[in-house]
Amino acid sequence: MDLTFEEFRDSLASRSRRAKVLKRDGRHFFVLISQQFSKEELGNLCDTATAIRRLDRHVDGRDYLRNLLRGARIMNLFAQPSTRTAESFVAAADKLGATSRLVSDIRTSSFSKGESVEDSVRTLSSFFDAIVARHPDDDFGARASWALSKTKRTIPVISAGSGKSQHVTQSLLDFYTLRYSLAERGGVDGKTVMIVGDIARNRAARSLAYLLTKFDKPKIHFVSPEAHAPDDELLAYIRGHEIEVQVHNAIEPVLREHGEGIDAMYMTRLQQEWDKGSAAGQPDANKKLGAPDAFILHHEYRKHIRPDCVLMHPLPRVNELPDEWEDHPGFVVWRQVRNGMWIRAAVFATVFGADAEIRDRSRRLGLT
Amino acid sequence: MDLTFEEFRDSLASRSRRAKVLKRDGRHFFVLISQQFSKEELGNLCDTATAIRRLDRHVDGRDYLRNLLRGARIMNLFAQPSTRTAESFVAAADKLGATSRLVSDIRTSSFSKGESVEDSVRTLSSFFDAIVARHPDDDFGARASWALSKTKRTIPVISAGSGKSQHVTQSLLDFYTLRYSLAERGGVDGKTVMIVGDIARNRAARSLAYLLTKFDKPKIHFVSPEAHAPDDELLAYIRGHEIEVQVHNAIEPVLREHGEGIDAMYMTRLQQEWDKGSAAGQPDANKKLGAPDAFILHHEYRKHIRPDCVLMHPLPRVNELPDEWEDHPGFVVWRQVRNGMWIRAAVFATVFGADAEIRDRSRRLGLT
Amino acid sequence: MDLTFEEFRDSLASRSRRAKVLKRDGRHFFVLISQQFSKEELGNLCDTATAIRRLDRHVDGRDYLRNLLRGARIMNLFAQPSTRTAESFVAAADKLGATSRLVSDIRTSSFSKGESVEDSVRTLSSFFDAIVARHPDDDFGARASWALSKTKRTIPVISAGSGKSQHVTQSLLDFYTLRYSLAERGGVDGKTVMIVGDIARNRAARSLAYLLTKFDKPKIHFVSPEAHAPDDELLAYIRGHEIEVQVHNAIEPVLREHGEGIDAMYMTRLQQEWDKGSAAGQPDANKKLGAPDAFILHHEYRKHIRPDCVLMHPLPRVNELPDEWEDHPGFVVWRQVRNGMWIRAAVFATVFGADAEIRDRSRRLGLT
Repeated sequence: MDLTFEEFRDSLASRSRRAKVLKRDGRHFFVLISQQFSKEELGNLCDTATAIRRLDRHVDGRDYLRNLLRGARIMNLFAQPSTRTAESFVAAADKLGATSRLVSDIRTSSFSKGESVEDSVRTLSSFFDAIVARHPDDDFGARASWALSKTKRTIPVISAGSGKSQHVTQSLLDFYTLRYSLAERGGVDGKTVMIVGDIARNRAARSLAYLLTKFDKPKIHFVSPEAHAPDDELLAYIRGHEIEVQVHNAIEPVLREHGEGIDAMYMTRLQQEWDKGSAAGQPDANKKLGAPDAFILHHEYRKHIRPDCVLMHPLPRVNELPDEWEDHPGFVVWRQVRNGMWIRAAVFATVFGADAEIRDRSRRLGLT
Repeated sequence: MDLTFEEFRDSLASRSRRAKVLKRDGRHFFVLISQQFSKEELGNLCDTATAIRRLDRHVDGRDYLRNLLRGARIMNLFAQPSTRTAESFVAAADKLGATSRLVSDIRTSSFSKGESVEDSVRTLSSFFDAIVARHPDDDFGARASWALSKTKRTIPVISAGSGKSQHVTQSLLDFYTLRYSLAERGGVDGKTVMIVGDIARNRAARSLAYLLTKFDKPKIHFVSPEAHAPDDELLAYIRGHEIEVQVHNAIEPVLREHGEGIDAMYMTRLQQEWDKGSAAGQPDANKKLGAPDAFILHHEYRKHIRPDCVLMHPLPRVNELPDEWEDHPGFVVWRQVRNGMWIRAAVFATVFGADAEIRDRSRRLGLT
Repeated sequence: MDLTFEEFRDSLASRSRRAKVLKRDGRHFFVLISQQFSKEELGNLCDTATAIRRLDRHVDGRDYLRNLLRGARIMNLFAQPSTRTAESFVAAADKLGATSRLVSDIRTSSFSKGESVEDSVRTLSSFFDAIVARHPDDDFGARASWALSKTKRTIPVISAGSGKSQHVTQSLLDFYTLRYSLAERGGVDGKTVMIVGDIARNRAARSLAYLLTKFDKPKIHFVSPEAHAPDDELLAYIRGHEIEVQVHNAIEPVLREHGEGIDAMYMTRLQQEWDKGSAAGQPDANKKLGAPDAFILHHEYRKHIRPDCVLMHPLPRVNELPDEWEDHPGFVVWRQVRNGMWIRAAVFATVFGADAEIRDRSRRLGLT
């Protein structure tokens, strides 16, 4: 493949050319953006995650799983620290028997000696069989994939968050949890989802909205501070998929008017570390953290929603989703965290081509 | 269990209520303080450690051990760096086939975004089967245990040192070494132990003294600088258990008078990083490190003690226990280090309920 | 063994006494300097590396390898950060089934409390079966080996770079790659090698030159800035082994005159982090990094060399070996990186006494 990096990157944005650069032997090899998965592929990923989760419950299944990627070595290249995301990937790899290493100093060491990103990634890749990459640059995952795709020893790259634009495995775990929670009510098609927070700058909230466009006529209520309301591009994209969308700036009125019809609420914290006056990526120390009243899901709002309404949050949370909600039947926040591990295991299985075998085994054993 | 944190913490201090919050299914599940083990349980822990140590000597035993906790994942949550304690736990987990991860940034990352300790511990716990925690707050281990005990997925918590108050596994390894070294002389009951150092602020020395109270009429000689002599609370507690205790402020006179009767000496360094004028936790750079003459076990004191007197030190040492002692028959300092690994493996076996099986196997094979 | 450290260190410098302190049971136990291997031992190391590389290609071979050092625990004690060297060792240990830990704070923690290097190394060694050490002090590896050789539980020590003097495994991987690349042309004997860079202060370049002295009449062209030309000691040593050596200060004239006769080129970057005006170990931020024209291997020089000329570089590179060279048939830079992993695996196999068995198996299976 003799693409320049610019051609590679542009291919990612094109629905028709994307598969050519991201897939190898018919399977996803570079996992960089939520949009790269078709509705069918999303279904397969979720089924693989469920199969792994159920196989892992018994000794035989665990032994089977831990044998699948035995000997495979995963590099978690985290230029930005993110303990929980990293540990989720490491646990996922463990479940399938792969070995993980956390490498966090890509920006120091040899870079300061004048080495190129490409050389650095390629050198480190020599010791590994797949890379999980998190980096503040929007393009890092794509650049690493491009650099490796030109070598004789190309290995899979999975993005664990690139800049502010994408966090593909977070959106997959959110989708997996939502799909699972709505399974007995016919799945995601036609459902009404309320998404609360800094929509404009929260990649988890935005990614979820993008994924919803793959389904049949869901409805979306956004609730966000005016300064961080969903941008026109996002709204136009969603509406272009025949999805009914409304934008609000406080939770309570939405619940009073539409509460009974809401199937799922996706709460997020206000990302105050990006506010004016904050040092890069750190919240202003003099400012009290937490959402103002309009964006807090007060416990007394419980009366407005159905008992089967799904309650989600990508964590960490501040004050927007109080502890009292934990006993609500639809509260699945802690399940989301565990699901992050299962869906990442499913992603590993997919890039290494072991996913179909896992689903088959689980089906044969009557687990799914 | 619907205790508040304050109720949980208060239960720890009560001999009668302690077991209820720390044990599950009859076994220790949260390992937080030395006092939680009965004399019989201490004996079982030591026997388990010995069984593991002996099984580990041969290929078959090693394979058996490495299969016991296969697939279990341990998080070593170290808010304070402590390479040797962490590596001892990791090695211990390895012996039983469990996988370890070292997580050290609990105080940064999501905490700075306003997350609670409880959410943070709980999120990370999702990827693990047990937590080993070291933290500067006295209450951290208890708080983590309490938070997890309220969830659906409660996992064991083992303290690796909380604040200045307790270092439970250090006291267990010291006890294990002392018991083993005195085994041919009838065990710890009735023995005379000299403990040297900053008694008032050395948690290892204090913990050992507390453990001695579980035995029948041992005698204790404390030797410490006046400013850091054992406090009245400690002395009252020990005397309350019918233990004869004397306090001195120099080693030599004690040895000249009582040397022949001393069964074990527990040397510790003076913890000068806590002295006035020292920056928090770091020794004063302008001050020469090391004990003054009265607290150094000079090699010429050898003539005052018996050849079977046990010599211990929790390390690191400065000048208080000179190298020349290494060939003394009772010098067991390096054995203490290895014992730290074996007793921690025994603690893991205990919280996962594999200890009785290990002891049985070892007995059947005639190893213990 | 009752040597003082000074006696131990002096033994290293002596060809006749070296083996006595570095070997145990006839095999290398402490791997500290390139010179410790005889020509025959170098051949065995390379054969072991090749055997491992080929066994690793198939499931059966991988399983065999991963069983060899199962349960062995390696401490990578890196006082200086070096991600790629560390990861290369970890990957190598993984291939043979050993477990690795990266410990990087030897200079902090207990050292600041007044502990000796010997106590610190010995304490940590209690949890491990071998040590890989990288340290800014030239003597650290030797000191650790000496300290451990006096204990009852002596474990192997492998240097991963000590100060500026030696980087033994780098020179082994360079040698392995060179030998392999020249295998069809009769090996290293009598070949002409051009070595470019800061010869005086580049330990990789110097070590390679030292290793070449073990072979029959090779020729060496050094190309270096005058300020960092090979020192008289190095030149005298090489000439003392009947090796023809020339010193130049620009690449182009050498290639124009001798290009057709050159069998291998070893390019290195200029180590500008040591230049005057640079903060310790960091390049001057105000100075453009990279070699001046005379030390860049411009792509148009291709016409001067043979297509089978071997092109090597220890990485990281800056501008001295442009990307355009990657499709030259002799370009083996990326193979060097992978070879670093294989030769380190061979070193582990050697210190644990598993190397002969590996070579035998590979031979029986017709792999070598």
